[in-house]
Amino acid sequence: ISLVPRMATDDYVGFTFFIGTMAMMAASAFFFFSMNDFERKWKTSVLVSGLITFIAAVHYWYMRDYWIANLESPTFFRYVDWILTVPLMCVEFYLILKVAGAKKSLMAKLIFLSVIMLVTGYLGEAVYPESAQIWGLVSGIAYFAIVYEIWLGGAAKLAKAAGGSVQRAHKILCWFVLVGWAIYPIGYMAGTPGWYEGIFGGLSMDVFYNIADAINKIGFGLVIYSLALQQSKPKV
Amino acid sequence: ISLVPRMATDDYVGFTFFIGTMAMMAASAFFFFSMNDFERKWKTSVLVSGLITFIAAVHYWYMRDYWIANLESPTFFRYVDWILTVPLMCVEFYLILKVAGAKKSLMAKLIFLSVIMLVTGYLGEAVYPESAQIWGLVSGIAYFAIVYEIWLGGAAKLAKAAGGSVQRAHKILCWFVLVGWAIYPIGYMAGTPGWYEGIFGGLSMDVFYNIADAINKIGFGLVIYSLALQQSKPKV
Ligand SMILES: CC1=C(/C=C/C(C)=C/C=C/C(C)=C/C=O)C(C)(C)CCC1
Ligand SMILES: CC1=C(/C=C/C(C)=C/C=C/C(C)=C/C=O)C(C)(C)CCC1
Repeated sequence: ISLVPRMATDDYVGFTFFIGTMAMMAASAFFFFSMNDFERKWKTSVLVSGLITFIAAVHYWYMRDYWIANLESPTFFRYVDWILTVPLMCVEFYLILKVAGAKKSLMAKLIFLSVIMLVTGYLGEAVYPESAQIWGLVSGIAYFAIVYEIWLGGAAKLAKAAGGSVQRAHKILCWFVLVGWAIYPIGYMAGTPGWYEGIFGGLSMDVFYNIADAINKIGFGLVIYSLALQQSKPKV
Repeated sequence: ISLVPRMATDDYVGFTFFIGTMAMMAASAFFFFSMNDFERKWKTSVLVSGLITFIAAVHYWYMRDYWIANLESPTFFRYVDWILTVPLMCVEFYLILKVAGAKKSLMAKLIFLSVIMLVTGYLGEAVYPESAQIWGLVSGIAYFAIVYEIWLGGAAKLAKAAGGSVQRAHKILCWFVLVGWAIYPIGYMAGTPGWYEGIFGGLSMDVFYNIADAINKIGFGLVIYSLALQQSKPKV
C-alpha cells in the first residue's frame, strides 16, 4: 500500500482540499508570528485570527485524507470545524467593537445565532436530507439575523460610534458576512435535494465550501491584521 | 512494509527530494528565528520568506514519500505548492517596493500573471499532455509578462525611485526570475512530449524542478534577509 496516495490529475475537489490545508497552516504561522508586534488589545484579536486558521488547518488535514480515502464529502468534520470557527468570528466582532463599549451580550447573541444556523444546517445536510429545504430555510433565517445585527443592529451603531479605522474594518467584515458567507448556502444547495436542484448541479459542494473557507477565514483574519497595524502605527 | 524504505543508491531524484525537504525545513527555521531582529516592515518580508520555505517543506515531505512509493512525478503536489508559493513571491516584490510607494494593484497584476502561468502549465503537464506545447506556450507568455513587469515595467520604475539597497535587491531578484525561474520550463520540456523531445530526454523533470526550487525559494529568501539586514543596520 502507498502512504501517499495518487491523486487523479483532474480531482479539483482534492486540489482545493490540499491548497486549503496548506493555506490555513501558512496563515496560522503568519498570524502567530506577527501578533507580538501589536499592543495587547490588538494582539488578542490577531491571536484569535490565528486560532481560526489553525483550527481550520487541523480539520482540513483530516478532511483532505477523508476525501482521498472515500471520495465523499467530509460533512461531519466540516461542521465540527464551523461550530468552533464561526463563534470565534463572532468573538472577533466583539473584540473590535470593545473600544466603543460593546457588551458581552452582543457577543452572546451573535454566537447563539451562529449555533442555530450551523446546527440546523447540519441536520438538513447530514441527518434529514429529505427535508433539507426546511432546515436550510431555518438556517438561512438565523444567517439573516446575523447579517441584520451587524449591518443595521446594535453592532452597526457601535461601529459608527467608534469611527475611524475601526468603523472601516467593521464595514469590510460586514461585506465578508454578506457576500463571502453567502457562498455556503450556495454550496448547500449544490449538495442537497430541493427545488433548487439542477441549478448548481454540476458543481461540487466541497469546492464551494473550500473556496469560501479560504476567503472567509484568511481574508477575515487579514482585515483584522491590517486594522491592528493601523491602530499600532502611531506608536512606532 | 518498512516505514523507512530503502533507497536505490543511484536514485538521484530521491536524493534531491530528501535534500530539498530538509533544506526547506532548515531555511524556515532560519527565517522564523531571525525575523525578530528587524524592524516591523522588514520583519514581515523575512516572515514571508519563511512562509515560502515552510510551505515547500511540508510539500517536499509529501513529494518525497510519493516518489518513494510510486517512483513517479508528484505533479499534483508540485503544483499545489507552486500555486501558493509563487504568489507569495509576488507579495515579496510588493513589500520591498512599498517604500517607494508600490500599490496593491502591482501585487494583484503579478499574482494574476503567475496564476495564469501555473494553471496553464498544470493543464499541459498533467491534464492534456497531448497538447503540452500549446499550454506551455501560453504559460511561457505569462512568464514573460512577469519578467517584463519587473525588469522594465512599473516595478522597475519603483525600484529606481527607491534607490540604494532596495534597488540592488530588486535587481538581484529580477535575475532570479529571469535565470532561476527559467529552469522550470526546461524541466517541463524534459517531461512532456513536443518538438523539443530528445533534447533533454535523458534527464528527469523532477531533478530540474527540485534544484530550481532550492535556488529560487531559499535564494530569494536570503536576498530579502540580507536586504533587511542592511536596512536595519543604522539602528543597531
Ligand atoms: C445560510 C446557510 C448555511 C450557512 C453557513 C455559513 C454562513 C457558514 C459559515 C461558515 C464560516 C464563515 C466558516 C469560516 O470560518 C448552511 C449551514 C450551509 C446551511 C444552508 C443555509
Ligand atoms: C514558463 C513555464 C512554466 C513556468 C514555471 C515557473 C516559472 C515556476 C516557478 C516556480 C517557483 C518560482 C517556485 C518557487 O517557489 C511551467 C509552469 C513549468 C510550464 C511551462 C512554461
